[in-house]
Amino acid sequence: MDCIFCKIAAGELPSKKVYEDGDALVFMDIAGDVDGHMVAIPKRHAENILDCDKDALCKVMHAVKTVAEHLVKRCGYDGVNLLNANGTSAGQSVPHLHFHIIPRKSGDGVNAWPSFGGATSSIDDVWKKIKL
Amino acid sequence: MDCIFCKIAAGELPSKKVYEDGDALVFMDIAGDVDGHMVAIPKRHAENILDCDKDALCKVMHAVKTVAEHLVKRCGYDGVNLLNANGTSAGQSVPHLHFHIIPRKSGDGVNAWPSFGGATSSIDDVWKKIKL
Repeated sequence: MDCIFCKIAAGELPSKKVYEDGDALVFMDIAGDVDGHMVAIPKRHAENILDCDKDALCKVMHAVKTVAEHLVKRCGYDGVNLLNANGTSAGQSVPHLHFHIIPRKSGDGVNAWPSFGGATSSIDDVWKKIKL
Repeated sequence: MDCIFCKIAAGELPSKKVYEDGDALVFMDIAGDVDGHMVAIPKRHAENILDCDKDALCKVMHAVKTVAEHLVKRCGYDGVNLLNANGTSAGQSVPHLHFHIIPRKSGDGVNAWPSFGGATSSIDDVWKKIKL
């Protein structure tokens, strides 16, 4: 498997690990784009939430929750953003499921919401096409 | 409970429902900021992932996955972004746990990644403070 995150999970590539259990790993993102940027991954390969089985998705979210609680209870943060991309059209760069975790503090000046350019279709038109 | 999302979950306020099961609801966001913007919520109130129990977190993620699969398999999309804010410092506006779902298509021109201004601390310094 030529997957950089599988290699990190297996210890074949180095990472700054923040949290690890049998099913999931959280480590520092190397982007350096915002303070405290981490990624949470399932250890077993899944490309994204579409092909990840439900149990593995639960377990990686439990790791995310554990880290979020730790950040707020013991590290001086008071909020957490999560970001996740599924598919290249969504901007997913590494094809191994990952949730970006951004720790937040009041007044940190970070804006974690994208600059969306505005909708081109009405909410009602899209809704009629996608509702289950 | 004076919570707008609890009222939507209970049917006391209207919403354009995309998906619903016993534990979770996905409905159209009214922001109109990007095509197809939805939010997924647990029906039982939790403020964010910090106070949401693990089982409820799993169930809302299963709803997210169900909708994501539907969007890609049957609605002509080929990617999905997820965004989530926990705490006012993270930009959480409604204090009921919610995951924003943005359906994506190749060439849609949407940029779902925030414009982070760059880190102010080294990755190593932050890592030493937050690792479990």
